[in-house]
Amino acid sequence: MRQAGRYLPEYNATRSKAGNFLALCKTPELACEVTLQPIDRYGFDAAILFSDILTIPDAMGMGLHFVEGEGPRFHRKIEGEKDLAALPSVDVIDSLGYVADAVSLIQKELAGRVPLIGFSGSPWTLACYMLSGGSSDDDFLFVRKWLYSRPDLVLELLTRLERVVADYCCMQARSGADALMIFDSWGGLLADSHFETFSLASIRRIVQAIKQKHPDIPTIVFVKGGGIWLDQVAASGCSAVGLDWTVNLRDARERVGARVALQGNLDPAVLLGAPAHIEAEVARVVQSFGRRQPGVGHVFNLGHGISQFTPVDHVSCLVEAVARESSRLA
Amino acid sequence: MRQAGRYLPEYNATRSKAGNFLALCKTPELACEVTLQPIDRYGFDAAILFSDILTIPDAMGMGLHFVEGEGPRFHRKIEGEKDLAALPSVDVIDSLGYVADAVSLIQKELAGRVPLIGFSGSPWTLACYMLSGGSSDDDFLFVRKWLYSRPDLVLELLTRLERVVADYCCMQARSGADALMIFDSWGGLLADSHFETFSLASIRRIVQAIKQKHPDIPTIVFVKGGGIWLDQVAASGCSAVGLDWTVNLRDARERVGARVALQGNLDPAVLLGAPAHIEAEVARVVQSFGRRQPGVGHVFNLGHGISQFTPVDHVSCLVEAVARESSRLA
Repeated sequence: MRQAGRYLPEYNATRSKAGNFLALCKTPELACEVTLQPIDRYGFDAAILFSDILTIPDAMGMGLHFVEGEGPRFHRKIEGEKDLAALPSVDVIDSLGYVADAVSLIQKELAGRVPLIGFSGSPWTLACYMLSGGSSDDDFLFVRKWLYSRPDLVLELLTRLERVVADYCCMQARSGADALMIFDSWGGLLADSHFETFSLASIRRIVQAIKQKHPDIPTIVFVKGGGIWLDQVAASGCSAVGLDWTVNLRDARERVGARVALQGNLDPAVLLGAPAHIEAEVARVVQSFGRRQPGVGHVFNLGHGISQFTPVDHVSCLVEAVARESSRLA
Repeated sequence: MRQAGRYLPEYNATRSKAGNFLALCKTPELACEVTLQPIDRYGFDAAILFSDILTIPDAMGMGLHFVEGEGPRFHRKIEGEKDLAALPSVDVIDSLGYVADAVSLIQKELAGRVPLIGFSGSPWTLACYMLSGGSSDDDFLFVRKWLYSRPDLVLELLTRLERVVADYCCMQARSGADALMIFDSWGGLLADSHFETFSLASIRRIVQAIKQKHPDIPTIVFVKGGGIWLDQVAASGCSAVGLDWTVNLRDARERVGARVALQGNLDPAVLLGAPAHIEAEVARVVQSFGRRQPGVGHVFNLGHGISQFTPVDHVSCLVEAVARESSRLA
């Protein structure tokens, strides 16, 4: 996750060149450059599109910007019916064509070396940022308030976002993405009774929309903090489920059977630790999933985004350990 | 949870009188006053001791203080063996006698009206704050780094804390607490492979220590974000398990059977919503647990702390709804 991050000196160099983070996302040549950097350095088995989770709200005119050390902020936030009605329709090709261009360019530069994973935030996760005006230090308490005061407005916003996310994913598929991942970073904040209604239902429809137009493109759904809803997520129609590090992979595999592949789930903090621990933890994750069987795959990954404080050689140590442990099980 | 919070005007008045939050915790008369305020106002079925989760690190000389709008901070943090070795032994009666005095005084003032719940933070949760020097906005990433670099030091700190937490709980029991709750606010940040080693093992031993000395005092264990580990927590020897709002109470009840009672689990954000939603959500929680049977109890509660922005009349609405829905099921 976030392979092209601030932990890489070459990334920081490209970012300086771009001027700021958003310019980096919006310049296909530079987005391509940082997407390929970790592939060139580490030889990962797949590339993930460099982009931001909030490109869609940005295209809706929310005024996305970044305050150093504080995460994303919008100049506006959705505070009621009027703001919702004022949201423009988004034609993804007009407004987010730079992402399509980046995907095409990356595929050209990758030249078949490894597959490219495109992605989008889930409607619920995008709605969290749009309703709060940016990131949150209180688990989006006031966004959750909306669920208990104006759920109709939240559902309307989700419907709007669902269409755009589906279009956005299909645009990436048409531009050459080999797989698509939906990040539901804030699904784990929802009450059990609400997860289906306010997050999974729209994810399921997006997965179906992708399947209908691009039946050969695998979809991956990741719900941070969603381990307890694994069965429901696995039944969404997706090809793989991403898991955070609180989930036991062996149990997860037993629960989902051959319905979906699993992706994950090393604690990103492991990469801040000592090499001997990195090797031991990688071995634990690989072994906990166990031997792969036809139709039962494991995609080794972190359980969430990589920290900017990760030493670059620790990632090499991880890559070697994954290769070693996987071949032991092969 | 946190019944006596900033949402109550009478609490804010008492806090002003105390000068600051820590003085309020350390003055038994004032701690008693704010413990009783929500009982007097709402007629809750139980009182919870007003105190802070970080009294133990404070007694260990960490220099606890509060920065407005930023949560707890310590003047020191544990950064290595030397800091750990320098931590003083804590005699709970000498250092935390003010909590014992508050419990005795509250019991006297309650005069049998309702039972009093005492509490402590879990060793892992206290360790998170001590290793980071205060609260965290990155899920205690650098505390998790310790688990993968110096797990031996973390375990040593946990062992030190475990003894003090057990003594602290037993002191509250001797002073008259009718039940004891262990809050593992940060257990949900642990990898599945670590939850037993770094959190649950010490909680289990504390529960056993309480049981041995005070066999009639029920213990409640709450692990925020720990829904996936419900079976393990329910097997810890505790009398009840507290649940956050991401857990389905009906499923949880099926999983734990008659082993433990369940406490929870309304999303605190519900109380910021509209009265009709408060009533509907309360009904949903009460009905999802279903009819109580001998040995299978449900203690209605929030799934985490009450927000300071809660309107006072919304809590009345909740209390009435709980009474109405419970009597319907009786």
